[in-house]
Amino acid sequence: MTNKTAVTSAPILSVLAERWSPRAYDKSYQLTQNELVSILEAGRWAPSANNAQPTRYFVVTREDKNHAAIAGTLAGWNQAWAPDASAIILVGVESTNADGNVNPFANYDAGQAVAHLSVQAHELGLHVHQMAGLDIAKAAEILEVPENIHLIVSAVVGKIAPADTLEGPLHEREVAPRTRKSLDDIVLYGRP
Amino acid sequence: MTNKTAVTSAPILSVLAERWSPRAYDKSYQLTQNELVSILEAGRWAPSANNAQPTRYFVVTREDKNHAAIAGTLAGWNQAWAPDASAIILVGVESTNADGNVNPFANYDAGQAVAHLSVQAHELGLHVHQMAGLDIAKAAEILEVPENIHLIVSAVVGKIAPADTLEGPLHEREVAPRTRKSLDDIVLYGRP
Repeated sequence: MTNKTAVTSAPILSVLAERWSPRAYDKSYQLTQNELVSILEAGRWAPSANNAQPTRYFVVTREDKNHAAIAGTLAGWNQAWAPDASAIILVGVESTNADGNVNPFANYDAGQAVAHLSVQAHELGLHVHQMAGLDIAKAAEILEVPENIHLIVSAVVGKIAPADTLEGPLHEREVAPRTRKSLDDIVLYGRP
Repeated sequence: MTNKTAVTSAPILSVLAERWSPRAYDKSYQLTQNELVSILEAGRWAPSANNAQPTRYFVVTREDKNHAAIAGTLAGWNQAWAPDASAIILVGVESTNADGNVNPFANYDAGQAVAHLSVQAHELGLHVHQMAGLDIAKAAEILEVPENIHLIVSAVVGKIAPADTLEGPLHEREVAPRTRKSLDDIVLYGRP
Protein backbone atom coordinates (compact mmCIF):
# COMPACT_ATOMS: atom_id res chain seq x y z
CA MET A 1 0.00 0.00 0.00
CA THR A 2 1.27 3.51 -0.78
CA ASN A 3 2.86 5.27 2.20
CA LYS A 4 1.02 8.55 2.57
CA THR A 5 2.04 9.42 6.12
CA ALA A 6 2.24 13.17 6.69
CA VAL A 7 5.71 14.62 7.17
CA THR A 8 5.48 16.85 10.25
CA SER A 9 7.98 18.90 12.23
CA ALA A 10 6.52 17.60 15.52
CA PRO A 11 4.81 14.24 16.03
CA ILE A 12 1.03 14.02 15.61
CA LEU A 13 -1.45 11.26 16.39
CA SER A 14 -0.85 8.46 13.88
CA VAL A 15 -4.50 8.36 12.81
CA LEU A 16 -4.16 12.05 11.81
CA ALA A 17 -0.79 11.57 10.13
CA GLU A 18 -1.87 8.50 8.19
CA ARG A 19 -5.33 9.64 7.13
CA TRP A 20 -5.62 10.35 3.44
CA SER A 21 -8.25 10.24 0.72
CA PRO A 22 -7.78 7.31 -1.66
CA ARG A 23 -9.73 6.56 -4.83
CA ALA A 24 -9.17 2.79 -4.90
CA TYR A 25 -11.83 0.98 -2.90
CA ASP A 26 -12.69 -2.65 -2.36
CA LYS A 27 -15.86 -3.23 -4.40
CA SER A 28 -16.99 -6.13 -2.27
CA TYR A 29 -16.44 -4.76 1.24
CA GLN A 30 -19.62 -4.04 3.18
CA LEU A 31 -19.49 -1.80 6.24
CA THR A 32 -20.56 -3.55 9.40
CA GLN A 33 -23.34 -2.10 11.54
CA ASN A 34 -20.75 -1.38 14.21
CA GLU A 35 -18.47 0.53 11.81
CA LEU A 36 -21.29 2.68 10.51
CA VAL A 37 -22.62 3.49 13.98
CA SER A 38 -19.11 4.22 15.23
CA ILE A 39 -18.26 6.77 12.54
CA LEU A 40 -21.64 8.49 12.86
CA GLU A 41 -21.24 8.61 16.65
CA ALA A 42 -17.88 10.33 16.16
CA GLY A 43 -19.58 12.94 13.99
CA ARG A 44 -22.42 13.29 16.48
CA TRP A 45 -20.08 14.23 19.33
CA ALA A 46 -18.09 16.83 17.40
CA PRO A 47 -18.33 20.37 18.81
CA SER A 48 -20.55 23.03 17.24
CA ALA A 49 -21.26 26.71 17.88
CA ASN A 50 -23.75 26.98 20.75
CA ASN A 51 -24.08 23.20 20.48
CA ALA A 52 -26.51 23.81 17.58
CA GLN A 53 -25.44 20.53 15.88
CA PRO A 54 -26.47 21.57 12.37
CA THR A 55 -24.98 18.56 10.54
CA ARG A 56 -27.21 15.91 8.95
CA TYR A 57 -26.20 12.62 7.28
CA PHE A 58 -27.70 10.66 4.41
CA VAL A 59 -26.09 7.23 4.19
CA VAL A 60 -26.36 5.47 0.84
CA THR A 61 -24.69 2.08 0.97
CA ARG A 62 -23.59 0.37 -2.24
CA GLU A 63 -26.53 -2.03 -1.77
CA ASP A 64 -29.09 0.76 -1.32
CA LYS A 65 -31.77 1.03 -4.03
CA ASN A 66 -30.76 4.66 -4.61
CA HIS A 67 -27.00 4.06 -4.80
CA ALA A 68 -26.72 4.16 -8.60
CA ALA A 69 -28.87 7.28 -8.79
CA ILE A 70 -26.84 9.06 -6.09
CA ALA A 71 -23.58 7.99 -7.73
CA GLY A 72 -24.95 9.66 -10.85
CA THR A 73 -25.15 13.01 -9.01
CA LEU A 74 -21.39 13.05 -8.34
CA ALA A 75 -19.06 15.04 -10.59
CA GLY A 76 -18.10 13.01 -13.66
CA TRP A 77 -14.49 12.39 -12.64
CA ASN A 78 -15.64 10.95 -9.33
CA GLN A 79 -18.15 8.59 -10.91
CA ALA A 80 -15.24 6.53 -12.21
CA TRP A 81 -14.15 5.35 -8.77
CA ALA A 82 -16.42 6.56 -5.95
CA PRO A 83 -19.21 4.00 -6.48
CA ASP A 84 -16.78 1.19 -5.59
CA ALA A 85 -16.67 2.33 -1.96
CA SER A 86 -18.99 0.74 0.60
CA ALA A 87 -21.15 3.84 1.04
CA ILE A 88 -21.68 7.38 -0.18
CA ILE A 89 -22.56 9.70 2.69
CA LEU A 90 -24.18 12.99 1.75
CA VAL A 91 -23.74 15.72 4.30
CA GLY A 92 -26.20 18.54 4.79
CA VAL A 93 -26.78 21.32 7.27
CA GLU A 94 -29.76 22.88 8.93
CA SER A 95 -28.67 26.38 8.03
CA THR A 96 -31.15 28.26 10.22
CA ASN A 97 -31.29 28.04 14.00
CA ALA A 98 -34.40 27.18 16.00
CA ASP A 99 -35.15 30.93 16.16
CA GLY A 100 -35.23 31.15 12.34
CA ASN A 101 -31.98 33.09 12.10
CA VAL A 102 -29.21 31.97 9.78
CA ASN A 103 -26.53 29.93 11.54
CA PRO A 104 -23.29 31.40 10.14
CA PHE A 105 -21.29 28.48 11.55
CA ALA A 106 -23.32 25.68 9.96
CA ASN A 107 -20.81 24.84 7.22
CA TYR A 108 -17.85 25.28 9.54
CA ASP A 109 -19.44 22.92 12.03
CA ALA A 110 -20.27 20.38 9.34
CA GLY A 111 -16.59 20.41 8.45
CA GLN A 112 -15.75 19.64 12.06
CA ALA A 113 -18.29 16.83 12.25
CA VAL A 114 -17.10 15.15 9.05
CA ALA A 115 -13.50 15.51 10.23
CA HIS A 116 -14.35 13.60 13.42
CA LEU A 117 -16.26 11.01 11.37
CA SER A 118 -13.27 10.59 9.04
CA VAL A 119 -10.75 10.25 11.85
CA GLN A 120 -12.90 7.55 13.41
CA ALA A 121 -13.22 5.75 10.07
CA HIS A 122 -9.44 5.68 9.73
CA GLU A 123 -9.16 4.41 13.28
CA LEU A 124 -11.34 1.46 12.19
CA GLY A 125 -9.09 0.71 9.22
CA LEU A 126 -11.45 2.36 6.74
CA HIS A 127 -10.82 5.35 4.48
CA VAL A 128 -12.92 8.39 3.62
CA HIS A 129 -12.72 10.55 0.52
CA GLN A 130 -14.76 13.73 0.57
CA MET A 131 -15.97 15.18 -2.71
CA ALA A 132 -17.03 18.73 -3.46
CA GLY A 133 -18.68 18.21 -6.85
CA LEU A 134 -22.32 17.11 -6.52
CA ASP A 135 -25.63 17.81 -8.27
CA ILE A 136 -27.22 19.00 -5.06
CA ALA A 137 -30.74 19.56 -6.39
CA LYS A 138 -30.87 16.11 -7.95
CA ALA A 139 -29.47 14.37 -4.88
CA ALA A 140 -31.94 16.21 -2.64
CA GLU A 141 -34.80 15.05 -4.85
CA ILE A 142 -33.69 11.41 -4.88
CA LEU A 143 -33.29 11.25 -1.09
CA GLU A 144 -36.27 13.49 -0.32
CA VAL A 145 -34.06 15.81 1.72
CA PRO A 146 -36.25 18.04 3.93
CA GLU A 147 -36.55 21.65 2.76
CA ASN A 148 -34.73 23.11 5.76
CA ILE A 149 -31.61 21.01 5.07
CA HIS A 150 -29.04 22.03 2.48
CA LEU A 151 -26.67 19.41 1.12
CA ILE A 152 -23.10 20.65 1.00
CA VAL A 153 -20.67 17.78 0.35
CA SER A 154 -20.45 14.07 -0.19
CA ALA A 155 -17.97 11.53 1.07
CA VAL A 156 -17.34 7.90 0.38
CA VAL A 157 -16.36 5.44 3.08
CA GLY A 158 -14.90 2.01 2.50
CA LYS A 159 -11.96 -0.36 2.60
CA ILE A 160 -8.96 0.70 0.55
CA ALA A 161 -7.89 -1.44 -2.42
CA PRO A 162 -4.41 -1.64 -4.00
CA ALA A 163 -3.50 1.43 -6.06
CA ASP A 164 -2.96 -0.72 -9.14
CA THR A 165 -6.67 -1.42 -9.35
CA LEU A 166 -6.83 2.11 -10.81
CA GLU A 167 -5.48 3.12 -14.22
CA GLY A 168 -4.13 6.22 -15.94
CA PRO A 169 -4.48 9.59 -14.20
CA LEU A 170 -6.42 8.04 -11.29
CA HIS A 171 -3.52 5.66 -10.62
CA GLU A 172 -1.03 8.53 -10.87
CA ARG A 173 -2.92 10.54 -8.28
CA GLU A 174 -3.26 7.52 -6.03
CA VAL A 175 0.49 7.02 -5.75
CA ALA A 176 1.50 10.70 -5.77
CA PRO A 177 2.92 12.13 -2.55
CA ARG A 178 0.57 14.17 -0.37
CA THR A 179 1.48 17.84 -0.33
CA ARG A 180 0.64 20.79 1.92
CA LYS A 181 1.59 24.44 2.25
CA SER A 182 4.31 25.06 4.84
CA LEU A 183 3.53 26.14 8.41
CA ASP A 184 5.04 29.53 7.53
CA ASP A 185 2.42 29.94 4.81
CA ILE A 186 -0.54 29.21 7.06
CA VAL A 187 0.49 30.59 10.48
CA LEU A 188 0.38 34.34 9.86
CA TYR A 189 0.94 35.56 13.42
CA GLY A 190 2.77 34.02 16.36
CA ARG A 191 4.63 31.36 14.40
CA PRO A 192 6.12 28.89 16.87
CA MET B 1 -11.87 16.30 37.01
CA THR B 2 -15.40 16.17 35.62
CA ASN B 3 -16.10 13.08 33.52
CA LYS B 4 -17.31 14.34 30.16
CA THR B 5 -16.80 11.19 28.12
CA ALA B 6 -19.30 10.87 25.28
CA VAL B 7 -21.90 8.13 25.63
CA THR B 8 -21.93 6.29 22.30
CA SER B 9 -23.76 3.25 20.98
CA ALA B 10 -20.54 1.92 19.42
CA PRO B 11 -17.00 2.57 20.68
CA ILE B 12 -15.10 5.55 19.29
CA LEU B 13 -11.46 6.62 19.63
CA SER B 14 -10.96 7.78 23.23
CA VAL B 15 -9.50 11.12 22.17
CA LEU B 16 -12.76 11.80 20.29
CA ALA B 17 -14.97 10.54 23.11
CA GLU B 18 -13.13 12.46 25.80
CA ARG B 19 -12.63 15.76 23.96
CA TRP B 20 -14.74 18.57 25.34
CA SER B 21 -14.56 22.35 25.67
CA PRO B 22 -13.82 23.49 29.20
CA ARG B 23 -13.76 27.04 30.53
CA ALA B 24 -11.40 26.47 33.47
CA TYR B 25 -7.79 26.85 32.37
CA ASP B 26 -4.47 26.87 34.23
CA LYS B 27 -3.38 30.53 34.23
CA SER B 28 0.28 29.65 34.56
CA TYR B 29 0.66 26.91 31.97
CA GLN B 30 2.68 27.87 28.91
CA LEU B 31 2.46 25.79 25.76
CA THR B 32 5.74 24.24 24.75
CA GLN B 33 7.14 24.84 21.28
CA ASN B 34 6.55 21.16 20.54
CA GLU B 35 2.88 21.32 21.59
CA LEU B 36 2.18 24.37 19.47
CA VAL B 37 3.92 22.96 16.41
CA SER B 38 2.17 19.62 16.87
CA ILE B 39 -1.36 21.05 16.95
CA LEU B 40 -0.68 23.35 13.99
CA GLU B 41 0.80 20.43 12.05
CA ALA B 42 -2.40 18.47 12.69
CA GLY B 43 -4.39 21.37 11.24
CA ARG B 44 -2.01 21.68 8.32
CA TRP B 45 -2.55 18.08 7.23
CA ALA B 46 -6.35 18.16 7.38
CA PRO B 47 -8.09 17.57 4.05
CA SER B 48 -9.57 20.41 1.99
CA ALA B 49 -11.53 20.70 -1.25
CA ASN B 50 -9.09 20.50 -4.17
CA ASN B 51 -6.34 20.69 -1.53
CA ALA B 52 -6.87 24.48 -1.53
CA GLN B 53 -5.90 24.70 2.18
CA PRO B 54 -7.75 27.96 2.87
CA THR B 55 -7.22 27.97 6.66
CA ARG B 56 -4.90 30.52 8.32
CA TYR B 57 -3.88 30.75 11.99
CA PHE B 58 -3.05 33.69 14.21
CA VAL B 59 -1.54 32.48 17.48
CA VAL B 60 -1.71 34.91 20.40
CA THR B 61 -0.08 33.42 23.48
CA ARG B 62 -0.93 34.76 26.92
CA GLU B 63 2.52 36.39 26.98
CA ASP B 64 2.07 38.08 23.58
CA LYS B 65 1.99 41.88 23.60
CA ASN B 66 -1.41 41.80 21.86
CA HIS B 67 -3.02 39.21 24.15
CA ALA B 68 -5.01 41.66 26.27
CA ALA B 69 -6.23 43.53 23.19
CA ILE B 70 -7.27 40.30 21.44
CA ALA B 71 -8.98 39.04 24.61
CA GLY B 72 -10.93 42.29 24.49
CA THR B 73 -12.35 41.36 21.06
CA LEU B 74 -14.01 38.21 22.44
CA ALA B 75 -17.69 38.25 23.37
CA GLY B 76 -18.17 39.57 26.91
CA TRP B 77 -19.12 36.25 28.47
CA ASN B 78 -15.94 34.67 27.12
CA GLN B 79 -13.69 37.42 28.44
CA ALA B 80 -14.36 36.12 31.96
CA TRP B 81 -12.46 32.88 31.42
CA ALA B 82 -10.82 32.60 27.98
CA PRO B 83 -7.78 34.82 28.77
CA ASP B 84 -6.62 32.28 31.38
CA ALA B 85 -5.79 29.75 28.67
CA SER B 86 -2.26 29.53 27.28
CA ALA B 87 -3.16 30.95 23.87
CA ILE B 88 -5.98 32.38 21.82
CA ILE B 89 -5.84 31.17 18.23
CA LEU B 90 -7.79 33.18 15.69
CA VAL B 91 -8.77 31.25 12.61
CA GLY B 92 -9.27 32.85 9.22
CA VAL B 93 -9.80 31.71 5.67
CA GLU B 94 -8.59 32.77 2.29
CA SER B 95 -12.07 32.85 0.84
CA THR B 96 -11.10 33.20 -2.81
CA ASN B 97 -9.11 30.65 -4.77
CA ALA B 98 -5.95 31.41 -6.73
CA ASP B 99 -8.16 32.07 -9.78
CA GLY B 100 -10.06 34.81 -7.91
CA ASN B 101 -13.25 32.78 -7.60
CA VAL B 102 -14.98 32.36 -4.25
CA ASN B 103 -14.09 29.09 -2.53
CA PRO B 104 -17.47 27.85 -1.27
CA PHE B 105 -15.75 25.26 0.93
CA ALA B 106 -13.44 27.64 2.80
CA ASN B 107 -15.42 27.69 6.06
CA TYR B 108 -16.20 23.99 5.87
CA ASP B 109 -12.50 23.23 5.41
CA ALA B 110 -11.53 25.56 8.26
CA GLY B 111 -13.87 23.55 10.46
CA GLN B 112 -12.06 20.39 9.43
CA ALA B 113 -8.65 21.89 10.08
CA VAL B 114 -9.57 23.17 13.54
CA ALA B 115 -11.14 19.80 14.35
CA HIS B 116 -7.85 18.07 13.54
CA LEU B 117 -5.97 20.69 15.57
CA SER B 118 -8.31 20.16 18.53
CA VAL B 119 -8.04 16.39 18.43
CA GLN B 120 -4.27 16.66 18.46
CA ALA B 121 -4.39 19.11 21.38
CA HIS B 122 -6.47 16.63 23.38
CA GLU B 123 -4.03 13.87 22.48
CA LEU B 124 -1.32 16.02 24.09
CA GLY B 125 -3.33 16.44 27.29
CA LEU B 126 -4.45 19.96 26.36
CA HIS B 127 -7.96 21.26 25.81
CA VAL B 128 -9.46 23.54 23.18
CA HIS B 129 -12.56 25.70 23.45
CA GLN B 130 -13.75 27.32 20.24
CA MET B 131 -15.70 30.56 20.43
CA ALA B 132 -18.03 32.06 17.88
CA GLY B 133 -18.40 35.57 19.32
CA LEU B 134 -15.58 37.87 18.20
CA ASP B 135 -15.19 41.49 17.09
CA ILE B 136 -13.70 40.46 13.77
CA ALA B 137 -12.90 43.95 12.45
CA LYS B 138 -11.09 44.93 15.63
CA ALA B 139 -9.15 41.67 15.85
CA ALA B 140 -8.12 41.99 12.20
CA GLU B 141 -6.85 45.51 12.86
CA ILE B 142 -4.83 44.49 15.92
CA LEU B 143 -3.16 41.57 14.17
CA GLU B 144 -2.85 43.29 10.79
CA VAL B 145 -4.69 40.44 9.12
CA PRO B 146 -4.12 40.59 5.33
CA GLU B 147 -7.07 41.86 3.31
CA ASN B 148 -7.66 38.56 1.52
CA ILE B 149 -8.09 36.68 4.82
CA HIS B 150 -11.38 36.70 6.72
CA LEU B 151 -11.37 35.79 10.38
CA ILE B 152 -14.18 33.40 11.27
CA VAL B 153 -13.68 31.95 14.75
CA SER B 154 -11.39 31.94 17.75
CA ALA B 155 -10.27 29.12 20.00
CA VAL B 156 -8.32 28.93 23.21
CA VAL B 157 -5.81 26.19 23.92
CA GLY B 158 -4.41 25.36 27.30
CA LYS B 159 -4.19 23.04 30.26
CA ILE B 160 -7.45 22.37 32.06
CA ALA B 161 -7.87 23.55 35.67
CA PRO B 162 -10.28 22.15 38.29
CA ALA B 163 -13.91 23.13 37.70
CA ASP B 164 -14.10 24.75 41.12
CA THR B 165 -11.79 27.52 39.97
CA LEU B 166 -14.91 28.85 38.24
CA GLU B 167 -17.92 30.32 40.01
CA GLY B 168 -21.65 30.76 39.41
CA PRO B 169 -23.06 29.99 35.94
CA LEU B 170 -19.58 29.26 34.55
CA HIS B 171 -19.08 26.58 37.21
CA GLU B 172 -22.53 25.15 36.51
CA ARG B 173 -21.76 24.83 32.81
CA GLU B 174 -18.38 23.31 33.55
CA VAL B 175 -19.83 20.41 35.51
CA ALA B 176 -23.01 19.92 33.43
CA PRO B 177 -23.24 16.74 31.35
CA ARG B 178 -22.46 17.04 27.64
CA THR B 179 -25.53 16.58 25.47
CA ARG B 180 -26.15 15.78 21.82
CA LYS B 181 -29.10 15.12 19.54
CA SER B 182 -29.74 11.41 18.96
CA LEU B 183 -28.44 9.55 15.93
CA ASP B 184 -32.05 9.29 14.73
CA ASP B 185 -32.25 13.09 14.69
CA ILE B 186 -29.15 13.58 12.60
CA VAL B 187 -29.07 10.56 10.27
CA LEU B 188 -31.97 11.29 7.93
CA TYR B 189 -31.46 8.49 5.41
CA GLY B 190 -29.94 5.04 5.75
CA ARG B 191 -29.93 4.93 9.54
CA PRO B 192 -27.79 1.96 10.64
